[in-house]
Amino acid sequence: MATPAFQFTTKANISTFGGTLLKLTHESAVLESTMALNVFFPPGALGRSTPKVPVLWYLAGLTCSGDNGSEKGFFNYWAAKYGIAVVYPDTSSRGSSHPGEHDAYDFGSAAGFYLDATKEPWAQNYQMETYITDELPAALYSYFVVLDSSRVSLMGHSMGGHGALTLFFKHPGKFKSTSAFAPIANPSKCPWGEKAFSGYLESKEEWTKHDATELIKTYKGPDFDILISCGIADEFLKGGQLLIDNFVAAAKEVGRESQVTVKYAPNCDHSYYFISSFAQEHVEHAAKHLGVL
Amino acid sequence: MATPAFQFTTKANISTFGGTLLKLTHESAVLESTMALNVFFPPGALGRSTPKVPVLWYLAGLTCSGDNGSEKGFFNYWAAKYGIAVVYPDTSSRGSSHPGEHDAYDFGSAAGFYLDATKEPWAQNYQMETYITDELPAALYSYFVVLDSSRVSLMGHSMGGHGALTLFFKHPGKFKSTSAFAPIANPSKCPWGEKAFSGYLESKEEWTKHDATELIKTYKGPDFDILISCGIADEFLKGGQLLIDNFVAAAKEVGRESQVTVKYAPNCDHSYYFISSFAQEHVEHAAKHLGVL
Repeated sequence: MATPAFQFTTKANISTFGGTLLKLTHESAVLESTMALNVFFPPGALGRSTPKVPVLWYLAGLTCSGDNGSEKGFFNYWAAKYGIAVVYPDTSSRGSSHPGEHDAYDFGSAAGFYLDATKEPWAQNYQMETYITDELPAALYSYFVVLDSSRVSLMGHSMGGHGALTLFFKHPGKFKSTSAFAPIANPSKCPWGEKAFSGYLESKEEWTKHDATELIKTYKGPDFDILISCGIADEFLKGGQLLIDNFVAAAKEVGRESQVTVKYAPNCDHSYYFISSFAQEHVEHAAKHLGVL
Repeated sequence: MATPAFQFTTKANISTFGGTLLKLTHESAVLESTMALNVFFPPGALGRSTPKVPVLWYLAGLTCSGDNGSEKGFFNYWAAKYGIAVVYPDTSSRGSSHPGEHDAYDFGSAAGFYLDATKEPWAQNYQMETYITDELPAALYSYFVVLDSSRVSLMGHSMGGHGALTLFFKHPGKFKSTSAFAPIANPSKCPWGEKAFSGYLESKEEWTKHDATELIKTYKGPDFDILISCGIADEFLKGGQLLIDNFVAAAKEVGRESQVTVKYAPNCDHSYYFISSFAQEHVEHAAKHLGVL
């Protein structure tokens, strides 16, 4: 038997909702960093090979790590019910000290924006798209063979909602579905996105390649069914950081308005009090597309 | 109309699970401190007078504030279902700077142990029993008249499990039920309790008045139905901080073993991954005694 090319270290093995939450670390070559992540295995899944279980990735927002979603999202409760594994990766490389890397909450560490940077010094190791869509899943699915690489969905919050939408469009057919809580839906046009793209990308021509509102216009893959939830009282919706309406307008422009469902929730904010309230709906959305509901 | 003697300031009004989470602050006379707390109102309850809703208090553990349980406990989901309000108070006064008050995780701030200190300087304002059983509920129930002061239950975790057990025994008939996650069940005999009681209490004779394993032996109130959950992999159970078996032995000693149910959960630890997994069972335990299940 070949030795796995990739090793994970289990820092904690925690029973929760009848399943198991593993706190893992591993060495990432593309991020040049030791990385932490959490993986929830539904009841009975950990340690077996078959039957395989589908996989749902939760991409977290600015300032977050893999802990926020797994501690506060209550996704695991629903994932246990439907027999889905949930992967909670980190939000940036953690191993470097580029100038200014740890100074701002919205750029650098914990703000990788799920893209491969092209501007130095970030181009060296801020390669979150490759990490999330290639290096980490390849390693996880070979190390934990119970995870079904053919049934994978995405979801994410805020910056992670941006990730869940853009990675879905950039990799047609790779994911069964995607959904987002309060996503940064048109980063080229909002302060958070402008700062990140200016910092990580060499030229402004590259911005459209990482913007869901632009990507949906040129997407040529299979039809989709995207669910977006957002609180009406979300301060970043009101502050022009999310621009979900621009994404909806773009969907209409290409005749895909029926493939995008946006639900605005009265009085809800941008926090995990909002996310956890709609965890059921988003896990069930994925469950449907993953074939377990 | 008389002006309420006590005012709350609403710092945030957050929709969650169809109800409302209020983040409140107020001035506490007994704690000589501005205090923060969270209160979850089930759907439809906030702003109305009747019908009143029962109230479940969640007492948090060492290092915690009112945020830990409300963000990570998953109680609000079940409380919404059964129409119960949940109060999440803080774990100590926050307004003073006694020598060493902020130096240790297990004594002083965030470690009030739900008792009224008798030793100076703590006796001045570490009066958590009076705060939790008198000052704060009186204020809350007069300010939010939808809260039913005649239907109140307790639950708590670790140090807060100690609080939920001891306050129940010290105030017979005041609470409809109590339950605990991984409680410090015999503090007189464990390092955490010895440190706290030595620091807060003038003499060792007082210790028995604040120890659930001692209090159950002298309790003369109505019969009860206590639920205790604890993870078998709980490091503090293994480390001799919880001593739940001593509490069970004391219950047997006074013929009350049928009134205490202890459930050990395989592989579970001391964290909110454990607590949230059994939130349903503890909320339903309270719901039954509060007359809504």
